[in-house]
Amino acid sequence: MSEVRTIGILGGGQLGRMLSVAASRLGLRCHIYEPGANPPAAEVAHACTTASYEDEAALRAFARSVDVITYEFENIPTSALDLLEDLRPIRPGREALRVSQDRLTEKSFLRDLGLATAPFADVTDAASMTVALDGIGTPAILKTRRLGYDGKGQARLSTPADAEAARAAMNGAPAILEGFVDFSREISVIAARNADGDVACFDPGENLHDNGILRRTTVPAGIPGPMRMDAVLIASKILNALDYVGVLGVELFVTPGGLVVNEIAPRVHNSGHWTQNGCVVDQFEQHIRAVAGWPLGDGARHADVVMENLIGEDMERVPELARRPDTALHLYGKAETRAGRKMGHANIVTAKSS
Amino acid sequence: MSEVRTIGILGGGQLGRMLSVAASRLGLRCHIYEPGANPPAAEVAHACTTASYEDEAALRAFARSVDVITYEFENIPTSALDLLEDLRPIRPGREALRVSQDRLTEKSFLRDLGLATAPFADVTDAASMTVALDGIGTPAILKTRRLGYDGKGQARLSTPADAEAARAAMNGAPAILEGFVDFSREISVIAARNADGDVACFDPGENLHDNGILRRTTVPAGIPGPMRMDAVLIASKILNALDYVGVLGVELFVTPGGLVVNEIAPRVHNSGHWTQNGCVVDQFEQHIRAVAGWPLGDGARHADVVMENLIGEDMERVPELARRPDTALHLYGKAETRAGRKMGHANIVTAKSS
Repeated sequence: MSEVRTIGILGGGQLGRMLSVAASRLGLRCHIYEPGANPPAAEVAHACTTASYEDEAALRAFARSVDVITYEFENIPTSALDLLEDLRPIRPGREALRVSQDRLTEKSFLRDLGLATAPFADVTDAASMTVALDGIGTPAILKTRRLGYDGKGQARLSTPADAEAARAAMNGAPAILEGFVDFSREISVIAARNADGDVACFDPGENLHDNGILRRTTVPAGIPGPMRMDAVLIASKILNALDYVGVLGVELFVTPGGLVVNEIAPRVHNSGHWTQNGCVVDQFEQHIRAVAGWPLGDGARHADVVMENLIGEDMERVPELARRPDTALHLYGKAETRAGRKMGHANIVTAKSS
Repeated sequence: MSEVRTIGILGGGQLGRMLSVAASRLGLRCHIYEPGANPPAAEVAHACTTASYEDEAALRAFARSVDVITYEFENIPTSALDLLEDLRPIRPGREALRVSQDRLTEKSFLRDLGLATAPFADVTDAASMTVALDGIGTPAILKTRRLGYDGKGQARLSTPADAEAARAAMNGAPAILEGFVDFSREISVIAARNADGDVACFDPGENLHDNGILRRTTVPAGIPGPMRMDAVLIASKILNALDYVGVLGVELFVTPGGLVVNEIAPRVHNSGHWTQNGCVVDQFEQHIRAVAGWPLGDGARHADVVMENLIGEDMERVPELARRPDTALHLYGKAETRAGRKMGHANIVTAKSS
């Protein structure tokens, strides 16, 4: 079926940890590459290399020890990818990374596919900021084009007078001004595509964010059936356009005019953690299946699930959650609990309602 | 809740592998101790010691690196247990091992609890064999008292004339003669008890064996409700009598006169693998919770499951099973497929019927 036995994962956080566990169910093993010491993924991985993304010898040895390479975050330095790509296949491929590493490229890509996005404009200097503000108005949000996640690298503009302060907050990095979307709900679709071009989607989940960090995902999302189908079709369109192999997360806004794509993530996604207790094959195994050349699992959902992130002091809830009969805990084994740090999540599972 | 962070596991086979994965969900990590090279559990464990059970220095270093010790098989040499017990708690405790390591001790223990067992008698020599045969008759089965599993170390007696050959097959080991039980079904209960004395049981599963090796477990078992309750009460009685901490497997025969206990296993059990896809907390996590001092999870079942072992050439079924939407694969990553070797299992999941 597939000759892949060892999967290399760039990044050793909780996503790598859960990917490694999923790989073990298929009899596969994982080698983690992570610059930081004692990464969560190493505790359940066959091997772990602790080295920087500039260490060419370490990257080469890593690539040669694995059959295929994947990643748990999208901001991998290009030089490392260039080196690795010569030695082993990288899945999902470079095009998905190129598009998702840069907000401007991503938004343009989505618009060119005919998908709705927030209004956006390139901001490189004071002059382009003025043009952007003229077109988009306020309120708006200025974001660095690269390396932003969980609300970092963003500045809000309530009035045009905030423009200078917002630009200063970018520290000179190229940025994109985005208009606000008037949405009633935020949902996301976790979708997968394998090398044969097969696509499988999980049910959309409804997301609650707080300060840019996901707090909770609820499935099923409170949206009508035709909109669920729209979400799935949007995800499929993106997967096919990228000739994608692996799991992709698509965040969407529900608006009176239909679905607006917020952003895509070329990897397993926090808002897909509910699949661990709601599906026979979860998003982590689905990603491993795609990357390793296996058939995709079925995305059907057999339960309703509320996924709650355990962030920082939320860990104090663990003793109570451990006693709840409907709750599955997934802790990441991070030694130090810090404010804002994702420490684990809980899936609260109930009988399927719809 | 519990200060346990690292769990030591004696034995590195598939049970240790799945225990280590379950521990990771609770943010815990495992250190495997296994004499054989490249054990399946090491691929998902924080650490692995490859050393014999006679290597006192290795045993000491292992014990000192962990907070609590458990095991995936019951035939651990006594000398190793004596050494380890002085350094760290062993859970389940020595009494459970003493009872389950010896078929005669086990049967006597069960009988003394008032539970029904097959008729049995001690066989040490030709004279005791004659006495045993007089009491039990044929057909009967002669088994070594220690170190038997998966049908090994057993000889069947169709008539009293088979006595000499059966005794010879024991190679001088102390043995026990067991009468046959006229049963309609084989079932098993997987039950857990934690240090606080709380008990939780999973639904009984119905087992199909072939040549002494488990082929399939089906839940729910085809038995009436009151008998399910009897099975659970029997398991609870055994757990409490042993002051047990961890998961225990109890195999039972369904007979016209009620349930007869076949044997107990002081560990997670092959017939409990269905819980991975049928329960919020599976038998592996349940064992880790008990051993680590956590509250037990709920044993409630949310689906019907058929667990099929993949033994030897059954691995050829994997490509087909990987395509089935209702099937969860659990492969053990063993490098070499051999006849009779447990290579993995498949859980076929359907909506809960009863």
